[in-house]
Amino acid sequence: MAQARGRLYGLLLLCFSCKWVSTAPTEHLISSLPGQPQVSFRQYSGYINVDESAGTNLFYYFVEAQSNASSQPLALWLNGGPGCSSIGGGAFTELGPFYPNGKGDGLRINPYSWNKVANVLFLESPAGVGWSYSRIPAGYRYNDARVANESLVFLLRWFQRFPEYSERPLFLTGESYAGHYIPQLALLMARHNGRMSRGAAAFGFNLHGILVGNPLLNYGVDTSATYSFLWSHGLISDNTYKGVASTCDFRYGYTGQNPDDASKSQGKKAHACPNFLVSARAEVGAFINMYDVTLDVCAPPIVHQALLLHKLMGHLVETSKEGSDEVDVCIDHELTRYLNHPTVQRALHANLTSLPYAWEACSDIVDYKYEDQLEDMLPLLKDLVKSRVRIWIFSGDQDSVVPLTGTRSQLTTLAHHLRLKTMIPYSAWYANGQVGGWVEAYEESLGLVYATVRGAAHMVPYAQPERALILFSSFLHAQPLPSRSS
Amino acid sequence: MAQARGRLYGLLLLCFSCKWVSTAPTEHLISSLPGQPQVSFRQYSGYINVDESAGTNLFYYFVEAQSNASSQPLALWLNGGPGCSSIGGGAFTELGPFYPNGKGDGLRINPYSWNKVANVLFLESPAGVGWSYSRIPAGYRYNDARVANESLVFLLRWFQRFPEYSERPLFLTGESYAGHYIPQLALLMARHNGRMSRGAAAFGFNLHGILVGNPLLNYGVDTSATYSFLWSHGLISDNTYKGVASTCDFRYGYTGQNPDDASKSQGKKAHACPNFLVSARAEVGAFINMYDVTLDVCAPPIVHQALLLHKLMGHLVETSKEGSDEVDVCIDHELTRYLNHPTVQRALHANLTSLPYAWEACSDIVDYKYEDQLEDMLPLLKDLVKSRVRIWIFSGDQDSVVPLTGTRSQLTTLAHHLRLKTMIPYSAWYANGQVGGWVEAYEESLGLVYATVRGAAHMVPYAQPERALILFSSFLHAQPLPSRSS
Repeated sequence: MAQARGRLYGLLLLCFSCKWVSTAPTEHLISSLPGQPQVSFRQYSGYINVDESAGTNLFYYFVEAQSNASSQPLALWLNGGPGCSSIGGGAFTELGPFYPNGKGDGLRINPYSWNKVANVLFLESPAGVGWSYSRIPAGYRYNDARVANESLVFLLRWFQRFPEYSERPLFLTGESYAGHYIPQLALLMARHNGRMSRGAAAFGFNLHGILVGNPLLNYGVDTSATYSFLWSHGLISDNTYKGVASTCDFRYGYTGQNPDDASKSQGKKAHACPNFLVSARAEVGAFINMYDVTLDVCAPPIVHQALLLHKLMGHLVETSKEGSDEVDVCIDHELTRYLNHPTVQRALHANLTSLPYAWEACSDIVDYKYEDQLEDMLPLLKDLVKSRVRIWIFSGDQDSVVPLTGTRSQLTTLAHHLRLKTMIPYSAWYANGQVGGWVEAYEESLGLVYATVRGAAHMVPYAQPERALILFSSFLHAQPLPSRSS
Repeated sequence: MAQARGRLYGLLLLCFSCKWVSTAPTEHLISSLPGQPQVSFRQYSGYINVDESAGTNLFYYFVEAQSNASSQPLALWLNGGPGCSSIGGGAFTELGPFYPNGKGDGLRINPYSWNKVANVLFLESPAGVGWSYSRIPAGYRYNDARVANESLVFLLRWFQRFPEYSERPLFLTGESYAGHYIPQLALLMARHNGRMSRGAAAFGFNLHGILVGNPLLNYGVDTSATYSFLWSHGLISDNTYKGVASTCDFRYGYTGQNPDDASKSQGKKAHACPNFLVSARAEVGAFINMYDVTLDVCAPPIVHQALLLHKLMGHLVETSKEGSDEVDVCIDHELTRYLNHPTVQRALHANLTSLPYAWEACSDIVDYKYEDQLEDMLPLLKDLVKSRVRIWIFSGDQDSVVPLTGTRSQLTTLAHHLRLKTMIPYSAWYANGQVGGWVEAYEESLGLVYATVRGAAHMVPYAQPERALILFSSFLHAQPLPSRSS
């Protein structure tokens, strides 16, 4: 059904793109966002139906490039979770053109927005995330395959509304659980394009590459890496780490236990790993941002105080400086306040059905098949390398949730198995005169690249926006990351 | 000879201290330092002869506590190297009352100076460091034992000049190679006190404890930890780390090679470890502060530009903001300019012999017996624990030179061998509402404590001055580090 529709829209697309006329939907054009600094590029947002029977409507926010929008590539951005918002994550706290101001009642410019070099499309996926919704409870039941399918349908229908972008070089980007979303969507696109080449589809995606940060690729490897990261960065003790390393096997999930063994064995042995995990949690404590172990946290008492003040005085105290280079650790609170304001939702053409819950950065409504997180993504990446899709994987190096060490070892393994030629051996890359991170690149076309971003969180463009923009721009143009300090 | 003199001064001391009259040397009193903000505490500096035959004179800088100086404890601070300056390191860029201003022509207040809670004595040791000097070339030939002996003589003679401090609780503090200096000096003091108790010396040190940050304790363990730290923090590749781990043995020094093996074996095997070390150096690159891998570096072109500007315009461009909370990565350059100014040296009663070289943060003149760095300090710490000297060891967790992992494992081992009771299990401690680091404490009196400082460099009070002051203050009073976030 969805495929048939995709084909139909594909025909329309082809037609539109031949004419090369902007037919962007005027009803989705954003005239201005409340408290928004003036800008010269266009923004769009609204709903796209991806499943009529379930009444599933996905929300998107699209920003055209700041200059030469008609010749810049198109990048889709997906946050992970599963269940977290690409609007709240990517668009307004990481790589979009605006950040909330300290009061949460307006916006400030992000000087390192990715729409300086690309048109960027943020998709709120799956239904249940942010303002994306379904008409029936079953519409919130998801697994990796359904997310990939609906994302494909979304893109087909989005291109129908924005046909001038249909032949533009397309890049899939994202972070975290998007390590699952993106390889699967990319392979689905390749399959779709295969149908086109056989004459069974009228439209083909012009997919050039994928870029994923701190991606979940293999739960066993990535979660083991979490505990060695916590240990090597001083957050847990020698004893606890040794215990975790010797008793936990995260291939079976976050409890670190083979469920068969756990049900069979008795007493201490059955609880050895879980007990060490409890120790680890106690040692780290409750006041660490696990997504960036060097970053401070937004202090709850201050937030509380700010909210009280707001009630009393009609506004929030300013917690971040306009244009400051410092990372605003309270940005999530400010954004939640901003996006829940009715005038903001009206300006965004959002929440048209008056959802019975507030906008949240990450959703509890999505009913995800968590077994899917145990799937290994390396075989998919292998297929993508073979089909010549550019793959750049990066790690914010302060993240303990999907730490660089696990991701790096998997990329090393991938390159080794595919016998890829090393073009850039492991070495520092530079941003604004300082080391931006380290990089290792394979193949002459830089088709497979692994890079770290120094001093960056799980949400890389949030903690290191300038370094992230340099990385994104290099990726788009398949150019080596700057190898000199000046 | 030195001991006899020590005894003599001891007698004088006893007499002075009975009277409890300030007899601080007026010729060492600093009236004011150029460009110094006004303060209410007294500062002293000058030379103390520690060896007449060699004409060895050690320079010191002493700041009284900001309030209640007469009842606050006394802390000696020693930088490491060996060969680095306690004035340039500790006093003016880490924990003293002043930092150089951005222009290097004046001073600004350090709001987290350790003289808020103690009288602090900075010793420039050994001769050849900063303005400390010897009259004969042999006077610059040092080993650990000679440094400890001269430091002991220095303190005996300093107490003779400052007798009101002779009975004050005394703490030895320092960092880096002071991991060698301090345990050895503390044991020498204990031995001296033993002589006093047998009636062979008239004066005893009132030593309460030692506090050492990022200390060199065991070269083999600490240097292995360097490479695992570089790997776990993303600075070197999987392949290079595996190579270092499998071919290098740092018990034999920085080349990682048993010299006997190296001379016997031929070809590749002989160079395996050195080759991997070369790879590691290449991968890290030249623009990383190995003492804080997350901190930016003072960009050489900017410094150069600043110096040129200075020549042209008679002043340096401002590279740091007055009172800024940010870390000034160019502070060393600014301080070197400040301390080499003749008016500054006159105000400090320094360089009275017109040394034929400029003041430098670390000296090439000291001819140190580098074999001593391979000595294991754990047995000395064991002796100190047994003699009830309080021992607190801490690690700035961003330091790759003496990383937390090596220090922590040695302290764990020490506590295990001595069967010390754990009083505070490994857990977060707090500073200003945020996690200051992690701590593990032994014995009811908190006689042995290991703590990390989150986000701190090898020079902990430089990168995290507030957290360092909380740590120092807790140490002085044998109080647990704050265990709550508010």
